[in-house]
Amino acid sequence: MTLTKSTAEVEQWGIFELELHGSSEGNPYLDVELTAQFAYNHRVIEVDGFYDGDGVYRIRFMPDTPGTWRYRTQSTLGSLNGIEGTLTCIPPAPDNHGPVAVSNTYHFSYADGTPYRPVGTTCYAWTHQSNELEKQTLATLSGAPFNKLRMCVFPKHFIFNENEPELYPFPCLSRGSSTLDMGKLVRGEASRGWSFDFDQFNPAFFQHLEQRVADLMALGIEADLILFHPYDRWGFATMDAQTDDRYLRYVIARLGAYRNVWWSLANEFDMMRRKTMADWDRFFRIVQEHDPYQHLRSIHNCFVFYDHTKPWVTHLSVQTTGLMDVRQTRIWREQFRKPVIIDECGYEGNIAPHWGNLSAQEMVHRFWVGIANGGYVSHGETYLAPKDILWWAKGGILHGKSPSHLAFLRDILEDSPATGLDPVDGLHPWSEFASAGKPHHSYLTYFGQHQPAQIVVHLPEGERYRGEVIDTWNMTVTPLEEVIECSAVLPLPGIPHQTLLMRRIQEELPNASK
Amino acid sequence: MTLTKSTAEVEQWGIFELELHGSSEGNPYLDVELTAQFAYNHRVIEVDGFYDGDGVYRIRFMPDTPGTWRYRTQSTLGSLNGIEGTLTCIPPAPDNHGPVAVSNTYHFSYADGTPYRPVGTTCYAWTHQSNELEKQTLATLSGAPFNKLRMCVFPKHFIFNENEPELYPFPCLSRGSSTLDMGKLVRGEASRGWSFDFDQFNPAFFQHLEQRVADLMALGIEADLILFHPYDRWGFATMDAQTDDRYLRYVIARLGAYRNVWWSLANEFDMMRRKTMADWDRFFRIVQEHDPYQHLRSIHNCFVFYDHTKPWVTHLSVQTTGLMDVRQTRIWREQFRKPVIIDECGYEGNIAPHWGNLSAQEMVHRFWVGIANGGYVSHGETYLAPKDILWWAKGGILHGKSPSHLAFLRDILEDSPATGLDPVDGLHPWSEFASAGKPHHSYLTYFGQHQPAQIVVHLPEGERYRGEVIDTWNMTVTPLEEVIECSAVLPLPGIPHQTLLMRRIQEELPNASK
Repeated sequence: MTLTKSTAEVEQWGIFELELHGSSEGNPYLDVELTAQFAYNHRVIEVDGFYDGDGVYRIRFMPDTPGTWRYRTQSTLGSLNGIEGTLTCIPPAPDNHGPVAVSNTYHFSYADGTPYRPVGTTCYAWTHQSNELEKQTLATLSGAPFNKLRMCVFPKHFIFNENEPELYPFPCLSRGSSTLDMGKLVRGEASRGWSFDFDQFNPAFFQHLEQRVADLMALGIEADLILFHPYDRWGFATMDAQTDDRYLRYVIARLGAYRNVWWSLANEFDMMRRKTMADWDRFFRIVQEHDPYQHLRSIHNCFVFYDHTKPWVTHLSVQTTGLMDVRQTRIWREQFRKPVIIDECGYEGNIAPHWGNLSAQEMVHRFWVGIANGGYVSHGETYLAPKDILWWAKGGILHGKSPSHLAFLRDILEDSPATGLDPVDGLHPWSEFASAGKPHHSYLTYFGQHQPAQIVVHLPEGERYRGEVIDTWNMTVTPLEEVIECSAVLPLPGIPHQTLLMRRIQEELPNASK
Repeated sequence: MTLTKSTAEVEQWGIFELELHGSSEGNPYLDVELTAQFAYNHRVIEVDGFYDGDGVYRIRFMPDTPGTWRYRTQSTLGSLNGIEGTLTCIPPAPDNHGPVAVSNTYHFSYADGTPYRPVGTTCYAWTHQSNELEKQTLATLSGAPFNKLRMCVFPKHFIFNENEPELYPFPCLSRGSSTLDMGKLVRGEASRGWSFDFDQFNPAFFQHLEQRVADLMALGIEADLILFHPYDRWGFATMDAQTDDRYLRYVIARLGAYRNVWWSLANEFDMMRRKTMADWDRFFRIVQEHDPYQHLRSIHNCFVFYDHTKPWVTHLSVQTTGLMDVRQTRIWREQFRKPVIIDECGYEGNIAPHWGNLSAQEMVHRFWVGIANGGYVSHGETYLAPKDILWWAKGGILHGKSPSHLAFLRDILEDSPATGLDPVDGLHPWSEFASAGKPHHSYLTYFGQHQPAQIVVHLPEGERYRGEVIDTWNMTVTPLEEVIECSAVLPLPGIPHQTLLMRRIQEELPNASK
């Protein structure tokens, strides 16, 4: 049966969805292949469809160009094969800038060219909580400064994460223990008792996940979707290779058309004892080959870096464990020639483990260090709270003091040059302060724990600049009175956590018409 | 002529000085060789004498054992040759613990076995100032918590250091410019115009230096004497090899008998462009071969480490430039198997260069980081001040807030196990906080910028401990109520800059007599 759908309208970088009905006999997850080709003039994009249960098959597509697109399905199931139709891609809504990609080597921008400056946060397991709590998380995010969220597809088994989720990604065959066994966790052993039918998926789980990704999209937040992670009691961290690969393709087929999706191959890949480096390479290639939109791809370390020079890695998603330091952002940029996001440099909070008890001031400080070294930093929050509702895992409300300071930072970041802030040398002779900017345009230096009462600046000859002293903690911006030229000594307040921003004065040409 | 002096009395580790009068004809600095052998029973120590001008020759000796010592001189000048005598070494005064040496691989103790815990400061050029200012420096030191002082033999040419000293180590033949030329400084070129008679010394210069070293001794302060440094306009950083070597032997002959002398081969040796690594090796060997007391020997880097594994290096004197970090103390201990003193990790102050504007809190923080990683840290202070009198160079008075907090730290340090604080692993499972202590005796963890409200501790089974929370900034010590055993969760105040100290409870044996 060939069904020709009438023309649908979808905005640029929106989601076109073709819903098909077919047989539910056998195991459609394994038995049925379904793809579609979407064509704009002579350009053809092939996308995977997926089975959504109850005889429903779906194909999702994100058009990147306004105009008329034609499509045609291919399937091993006759009733799904050869379905043709068209869709009209209309211009995007004002708040839709398209997916984010790397721009200018070390930075990011949306598909429409708008710069994107990540100011991320972390709620690993927020989609595995109650509806009430998830709604609260969204309400919190709607008033928070964050435009990226790190979140796991799979539920999480860890300290403060012992509650069972309502939904699992696979049909549950037998339920096991919810007790946290850190020993088994470390050895990569799922707790006994749990079993799942890994030959099928649970559509309700993914429908729920998609709704949450769409909720984030509505808030203008990128969903940095973590595909694997080690903190598991159900067996999702120790599936066989075939299941892993099928899971990846299913997730891509379902979620690839959401413009705000980023693929984070793993949280702490090096803690997943059963996976080899060859597995990670294969996962990356699967994502690279099957995602028609080439969403951003990264992989997050615990102790050891994955080789970020590999071509399928779009940017670094770093955890600064041990003696690693946000200041190294600049070195990693130079080493890998890719954008660096320090997605974990510790969280604001007060729990016992070292990674979960930074002061708000230290959290904000690390953001500024990252930015002044040409990178980006992410937030997390781990304050002890009733019912173990810690933001970093479950969302809810924010208890900490850093977010308002990060909102201040984000405003300054978004006011920075469109090409991004890149490290600059020689701005302060005899000093090693981290400076970033755009040469001959503007320069930013962050002094951190240092408290100079004066600073020497060395600017390009023949250029005139105006300076502002930004108190990153007290959130004030104080213009300097004097015009700054060439080598000068500038006064600073002599207290920690100051940033100096110098912007070039746009000279009017003598006889220029206005 | 053989002159037999009557028996003199000198306390153990005090200075015995034999003053001889001879010819001043020719150039005694070059022409006359003078040594003496000091014997205690069958043990013989040979020491170099030196010419002190005006026909006066001196031999200084620091006896290390109470009792009667015999001596006999040897000289190429007949009138100084074969002089014999005895001295009686009496027990030391109560505040005289002898010279400091390495003990227990990573730590220090005085010769009498008293542990020595360096809490140093820095006044590079304090002996090249006016008598009034030098007296003020000594008065300040007498009320400060410091027990080690980094100081240069040669005067200093640098920012805030443009004043001429009153005395030079060599006779001045022609005076040059006092203008600071940073370009020439960087290229290792002395300013034109200065010339000295490097074949002679200026006894007044060294007499003055010795007085200041003795003044420090009276205050219980070790003089970490910097033998070479790059910040020079007179030519002292660019002398020829013969002059360098003669200078070293002269300094050792004059100052070796001062029990509080340490030899710092250089400040920022790697900034001395005219010296090769072979020069530094030779300098070390000269000091090692000619100092009968084997005072501590180190060499201080700017950017690059000297190979501290070489046998003549007794301990590391580190500057943490660039991305180096006080936290690496532990790694350097393991790498070099020697004590680590972070002699420069930045100074409290507000001047423009990055190394001179730490907040007091950050300065104190770095001390605690060093200690919790099994090392030691030094202080410096660089606040803008009238007449460019910055403590770090010229001494004077202290303006900063860190010294009172360092006094608090020193008290705690001196109350720590005699064997020193060594890094301890596994005290806080799942966390990377730096802990140090003595196993089965006491443990210290510093939380720095972290603010845990609770902490998991894992102590040896069957042992009982009492805990104290040390607020390193507010300088309070709060005992924890509960006895701590095995694995426990302890409450902490949830603010930064806390240290947890746990001391084992000394169990009384059931039937032990009291």
